Amino acid sequence: MNYNKWVRQELRGLSQSLGFRYTPIEEIQRRLIRIRAGMEKIEIEGLLVIQKMNLYYLSGTTQDGLLFIPVEGKPLLMIKRELERAKVESPLKQIVELKSIREIAALIQTHCGKLPQSVGLELDVFPVKDYFKYQEFFPGTKFVDASLILRETRKIKSSFEIDLMRKAGKIGKKVFQEAKRILKKGMTEIEFGGLLEAAAKRYGHEGLLRVRSLNYEAYTWHVLSGLTGGIVSQSDSPMGGLGLSPAFPVGASLKKMRAHEPILVDFGTCFQGYQADETRMFSIGKMKQKFIDAYKACREIHDAVLQDARPGADCEGIFLKTLQLAEKLGYRDSYLGPPGLQTRFIAHGIGLELNELPFLAQGQSYLLEEGMTFAVEPKIVFPGEGSVGLENTVVVTRDGCEILTPASQEIFQV
Amino acid sequence: MNYNKWVRQELRGLSQSLGFRYTPIEEIQRRLIRIRAGMEKIEIEGLLVIQKMNLYYLSGTTQDGLLFIPVEGKPLLMIKRELERAKVESPLKQIVELKSIREIAALIQTHCGKLPQSVGLELDVFPVKDYFKYQEFFPGTKFVDASLILRETRKIKSSFEIDLMRKAGKIGKKVFQEAKRILKKGMTEIEFGGLLEAAAKRYGHEGLLRVRSLNYEAYTWHVLSGLTGGIVSQSDSPMGGLGLSPAFPVGASLKKMRAHEPILVDFGTCFQGYQADETRMFSIGKMKQKFIDAYKACREIHDAVLQDARPGADCEGIFLKTLQLAEKLGYRDSYLGPPGLQTRFIAHGIGLELNELPFLAQGQSYLLEEGMTFAVEPKIVFPGEGSVGLENTVVVTRDGCEILTPASQEIFQV
Repeated sequence: MNYNKWVRQELRGLSQSLGFRYTPIEEIQRRLIRIRAGMEKIEIEGLLVIQKMNLYYLSGTTQDGLLFIPVEGKPLLMIKRELERAKVESPLKQIVELKSIREIAALIQTHCGKLPQSVGLELDVFPVKDYFKYQEFFPGTKFVDASLILRETRKIKSSFEIDLMRKAGKIGKKVFQEAKRILKKGMTEIEFGGLLEAAAKRYGHEGLLRVRSLNYEAYTWHVLSGLTGGIVSQSDSPMGGLGLSPAFPVGASLKKMRAHEPILVDFGTCFQGYQADETRMFSIGKMKQKFIDAYKACREIHDAVLQDARPGADCEGIFLKTLQLAEKLGYRDSYLGPPGLQTRFIAHGIGLELNELPFLAQGQSYLLEEGMTFAVEPKIVFPGEGSVGLENTVVVTRDGCEILTPASQEIFQV
Repeated sequence: MNYNKWVRQELRGLSQSLGFRYTPIEEIQRRLIRIRAGMEKIEIEGLLVIQKMNLYYLSGTTQDGLLFIPVEGKPLLMIKRELERAKVESPLKQIVELKSIREIAALIQTHCGKLPQSVGLELDVFPVKDYFKYQEFFPGTKFVDASLILRETRKIKSSFEIDLMRKAGKIGKKVFQEAKRILKKGMTEIEFGGLLEAAAKRYGHEGLLRVRSLNYEAYTWHVLSGLTGGIVSQSDSPMGGLGLSPAFPVGASLKKMRAHEPILVDFGTCFQGYQADETRMFSIGKMKQKFIDAYKACREIHDAVLQDARPGADCEGIFLKTLQLAEKLGYRDSYLGPPGLQTRFIAHGIGLELNELPFLAQGQSYLLEEGMTFAVEPKIVFPGEGSVGLENTVVVTRDGCEILTPASQEIFQV
């Protein structure tokens, strides 16, 4: 059988029957209008999109390749592997084969009639070695950092995107409902985490969570019980957990979960690339009153953030207000980490990646806008004892915000 | 309770009781001798190690930070988060707090008495934006690409490393044994993949596989059944599978597995950062004779590679010989992918990452050496129908090679 013919005839139907949601051309066009406004602001003639999530956002495919967007005219999608599949997945019309990255400039020249004088690149993640090569490929072209305009464009979600995040949140709800049947005394943290992820995958969770960084890694098996919840690690998180080794010193460990311990489950789900992040508390038997009280404080802080979250609210202001509330509630030294290691954010933007804009954090003095999505996560940490926390992913609406992660916020006690 | 005190007193004992294997100082010292030989070759006075797996290799920790290695004198480990934990994990003695990356140069100056004239950086992955910042921090210092000397040093594994890879392989064996009890007719590919990973985690698999690249992502749920095994995707792999969405178009899908289909399971396991990669075939009832025959051919090609793999053998030569053998066996047009999309490698180096040296591939004309580890993976693809393959991770010994992935190579038929 001829492979290309098979792809052209069968792949779209097969994949849609198995749940694939392709990005409509109208959605891509609206995104292109916004990214071009950003391009004009930083005065670039073209934008070369390489990083996988930006490529998906602007082309609808994550096949291996690059997208060139001229400030005027049609975008050009260049695909190394796999071309026929990219043609099925992307609604763009100009899709060509890229045999070697040495051809990029020639393909752009053919497409536009000339080489652009100034090209934006994602310099926040683009490797130096490749940058030097691209300087050779584009003699005379000035490269400009375009990472911020991409981040700014992606920070406002469309209804198409919010719908996918809502579906990710619904997967999370199903997983947390099942979790009560999975959790057993004496089970290790990592076994519980693994079974939760297996359940999520059954509902279409994609397994990988994504974060925009050289070294930062995302994962779903953040299950911390009792004293492992009081351990800080490499990540900019109130508690990192013990993990499994010095090579992966975060998240669930081989520690067995015991009765009456607080069991914190920070679990992200991903649907069609779009993520929802949430944290819930579990216990085997009733957890100690100290943790129940602290969890109540987390809920109070969480609700106060949601009360304030609306278009026009200041991101830093909301964070600072939670510090005051935590102090008032008696958790000054345990809110967001142990003394000296407390993190300085109450929410992180989320969408295709876990560290998108906005951050409700110290130093982030800008305003919330309709369509922004972020995960609010008040947490309280007691070293040597355990931690508690609540996290929901929300979207800013016209006059407030809406939770996209509908799992029950009560403690899941088994 | 004081957090730092708790970490100093409790963390090492707790983590070792839960399976942590810390890298001994002697192991780190031997690695430093080899990396310094590389530094002298490219004439750099210092090496700044930033990427997580290189940092782990040379310091024993993956806490967030950087390692500076002067060509003479003691290395300096600078940690952003979490300092006390890094002191527990790394056997190095000079470990200091890094409050901001703006301090790096000053810390190095204090440590060495002067700033180095030439510094190696991992330019294969280091982002351009950070590179520009570092140029400001180190005025007058020349930066040199050190990625190759790091890759070259890491390509020869010590007995400490091989032992960890062997343990990863043993986890794989247990998972494949359990897989026969997990696999059920009508189960989706992704559900099977999720449950395999949950089983692996129970035995200490770390969940994440790692690959050195901006866009390439590794994952364990590569479960392809029948026609999804005949689909190529973004990755440089004979078959990519359908995946779950255009955002994750590789690996297992929501397709239900049916009787008599070939079910290909390409499953990697990770223990203390060290990986083993393997592929086995499953079927519900007997698979069609066409696939049984093709799998037999894969085993023959696999065995021929292992027969030739010894110190002094040419990597490209071994690959080219498999092309001849595949043709002789009647699989010229289906070996390593469909016509026009066939990959050009039969094995990839493996260790802390899935794309280490060596590659047994076209254009890779260098010799095998004792201590190299790689995953051999002959695969045969029939578009629209399915694919078969076998993969084992091996280490080159003094006079041959040894398999580190001991799961049975027979078809797992349920």
